Amino acid sequence: MKPNFSLRLRVFNLNCWGIPYLSKHLADRMKRLGDFLNVESFDLALLEEVWSEQDFQYLRQKLLPTYPAAHYFRSGIIGSGLCVFSKHPIQELTQHVYTLNGYPYMLQHGDWFCGKAVGLLVLHLSGLVLNAYVTHLHAEYNRQKDIYLAHRVAQAWELAHFIQHTSKKADVVLLCGDLNLHPKDLGCRLLKEWTGLRDAYLETRDFKGSEEGCTMVPENCYVNQQELEPFPCGIRIDYVLYKAVSGFYISCKTLKTTTGHDPQSGTPLSDHEALMATLCVRHSPPQHNPTCSHGKSPPPFPRSFTTAEQPFHSPPPAPLLCLVLGPAEMSPLVSVLKEAWAELDLGVAQARWWTSFAGYMIGLGLFLLALLCALAAGGGVREVTILLGIPSVGLVLGAGAGYLFHMQEAKGLCRARAELQHVLGRVRESQNMGPESQPALLLEQQEGNRGEDQ
Amino acid sequence: MKPNFSLRLRVFNLNCWGIPYLSKHLADRMKRLGDFLNVESFDLALLEEVWSEQDFQYLRQKLLPTYPAAHYFRSGIIGSGLCVFSKHPIQELTQHVYTLNGYPYMLQHGDWFCGKAVGLLVLHLSGLVLNAYVTHLHAEYNRQKDIYLAHRVAQAWELAHFIQHTSKKADVVLLCGDLNLHPKDLGCRLLKEWTGLRDAYLETRDFKGSEEGCTMVPENCYVNQQELEPFPCGIRIDYVLYKAVSGFYISCKTLKTTTGHDPQSGTPLSDHEALMATLCVRHSPPQHNPTCSHGKSPPPFPRSFTTAEQPFHSPPPAPLLCLVLGPAEMSPLVSVLKEAWAELDLGVAQARWWTSFAGYMIGLGLFLLALLCALAAGGGVREVTILLGIPSVGLVLGAGAGYLFHMQEAKGLCRARAELQHVLGRVRESQNMGPESQPALLLEQQEGNRGEDQ
Repeated sequence: MKPNFSLRLRVFNLNCWGIPYLSKHLADRMKRLGDFLNVESFDLALLEEVWSEQDFQYLRQKLLPTYPAAHYFRSGIIGSGLCVFSKHPIQELTQHVYTLNGYPYMLQHGDWFCGKAVGLLVLHLSGLVLNAYVTHLHAEYNRQKDIYLAHRVAQAWELAHFIQHTSKKADVVLLCGDLNLHPKDLGCRLLKEWTGLRDAYLETRDFKGSEEGCTMVPENCYVNQQELEPFPCGIRIDYVLYKAVSGFYISCKTLKTTTGHDPQSGTPLSDHEALMATLCVRHSPPQHNPTCSHGKSPPPFPRSFTTAEQPFHSPPPAPLLCLVLGPAEMSPLVSVLKEAWAELDLGVAQARWWTSFAGYMIGLGLFLLALLCALAAGGGVREVTILLGIPSVGLVLGAGAGYLFHMQEAKGLCRARAELQHVLGRVRESQNMGPESQPALLLEQQEGNRGEDQ
Repeated sequence: MKPNFSLRLRVFNLNCWGIPYLSKHLADRMKRLGDFLNVESFDLALLEEVWSEQDFQYLRQKLLPTYPAAHYFRSGIIGSGLCVFSKHPIQELTQHVYTLNGYPYMLQHGDWFCGKAVGLLVLHLSGLVLNAYVTHLHAEYNRQKDIYLAHRVAQAWELAHFIQHTSKKADVVLLCGDLNLHPKDLGCRLLKEWTGLRDAYLETRDFKGSEEGCTMVPENCYVNQQELEPFPCGIRIDYVLYKAVSGFYISCKTLKTTTGHDPQSGTPLSDHEALMATLCVRHSPPQHNPTCSHGKSPPPFPRSFTTAEQPFHSPPPAPLLCLVLGPAEMSPLVSVLKEAWAELDLGVAQARWWTSFAGYMIGLGLFLLALLCALAAGGGVREVTILLGIPSVGLVLGAGAGYLFHMQEAKGLCRARAELQHVLGRVRESQNMGPESQPALLLEQQEGNRGEDQ
């Protein structure tokens, strides 16, 4: 690749709010979205909440001349809702479905039925390998009492982990999607710190759009105004994140959002705002790090790399490299890993409580059934016996399903916690942190391990 | 790394048959396994079917002096049963749980409850990056009428895909586990062809152990002799597979299996035979391929690379590289991809049939309930009405669960089929295969896409 190599990448992201029969003006919005994408001719359009594959097929047909490559990520019962349209051929693609994604009995929320996932497509652009990820994490229905917090943190961790493990040979990593996380939320910090991804909104010098880069704004007529009451400007939960790996620089030249209106017809394309970023990738002479083998490692880990104050073109960090750096550089990562560990630990305790509760309910149901059988055998009132028998059977079956579900939930949270614990252990080893830094955490983990076989 | 770099890697793999309360002599076998692993001091011990985490904790304590690093891969309701013990520090770890893994209502088989998965650990050995994978695929209960065939093929595809996407910066890839696939089975061929992994049994010149390398043999007293009747020598379903990436050569110096007996006490360690391989990794001058960007690509794709007749130290293939080669070289890969596509297509049709059937059953149940309500309202025999109402409610609930499950199954199979289709498309584009090679397949896929939104 030439030293003066330069690549401009125009990216579009939108949560389309595409619930068939429920979302307002869906057909019209899909039509206008298709028209807009055709006119703008982005390199990549990454969409979330395209719940119906018919809508995807409609867009595919409409966008075929401008975006010859497209993919719909199928998962769960309803689907992940994720799809991509690309002007460039997709070399490889895969997806990862999150282990935890809410509760099947929370029918009013329905996230569990979707099979929320992260989709990956690998593009080769002028010899550059681009790994583009699109995702949608579990929604936040109640910020004050968020019962899905542990699940969302686990999802953020899985997402970060998936990106890390699948992007090792990528030159540029791009993540777009609806994270359902505010910029300072634990999951968002965990994702950024562990992957080294940078936030287009914080990085760009040319931003046009809604105040504070919000992607759900009160000006949007489809937004539930009551939900946005605590946030007068709106909330920023949709992101364009990116990083370049050794030998490359990436920067966000411009970032635009829609502002609650479609310039043409007045009604917005979705209840979320669209993000449109122009990224610039440049080749730079590789900065060799003598401490790492194979000369494969990325350049040094910048301090406070997620803040807007950092050097504009500074290369991104990589967690494995972090392990060879001193304690001062590591503190934000260690801090967020510990915080996530604690949140997952709470989640494990809660999942185990529910497992035990369901176990007791199974016992109660069986006891009631035995009692009713005895009554029936003794010549009790048969009709009443049968009537009471139905809820007892229901209790046993329902509690049985709950028991299995929460057992699986506990296993999933334990898995993420163990992975975090492993990373913390590696950081500790590499940094030679003193024994005072994590003894409580390690002891807790050992105790946890003893009690995990249930 | 020095040009005369050489690394010897001793690996142990065993399906431990560790079902608490059901597997015979489990505690004694675990004790003897621990003693054996301590005496032999392998670099890596990869175990399957350690279903109880207590057994893992027991082994961890016992093996701690010899294998300081260990990990248990948690997933599903029961667990994946996978664990690893390593003499060397584990740098990174993650896992992928297979999307499809049997049916929840097949309680007698129980695979669905396990959350079968593939675990990955990354080790750094003398500057070499080793990606070690351990897995256990869905069991085969009836070879003549295998209702899990599509699921196992999808698992093999996901496994191959996971390895491909996570091992791009690895120098050596190692996969051990119980694949529940005979060497010539579709899943096994798909895995080998797509990843380029080579079979230690076929590659080594120094094999000692059971006839034809079988890992379930009639001599083993724990084996169900009836199941092995069609295979007088036994079956080979556990594997050590490996490959080295550009710049490295790997070979299997020796491979041993147990032969149905433990040399010490006479009773075997499990119903499966253990595999013990000594691998040798050597550094070689990188063979630059001018057709690929970045000079990152591995050396040329060898013909018939999965046969024993190939050059002993030939470097492994990589699927992405395959895309730049001519039709002659590609035919085994294309052939197995097509075969897998057809198998998954059958699976999709079957899953959709079951979804429809469940849908009709829901309708029938609702009709019966309505009829019974009408009877009860009309003053019919109440007791009979209630008695008939219970199975009707059960029918609606059971069929509802079945409907959702098979819908998810169809989505999962469609996902794998679409990924295969994408790979076939890429191969076709790159090879400039004539339009006659895949029109039927593509037409079917287009038709499938039209009908997939259900």
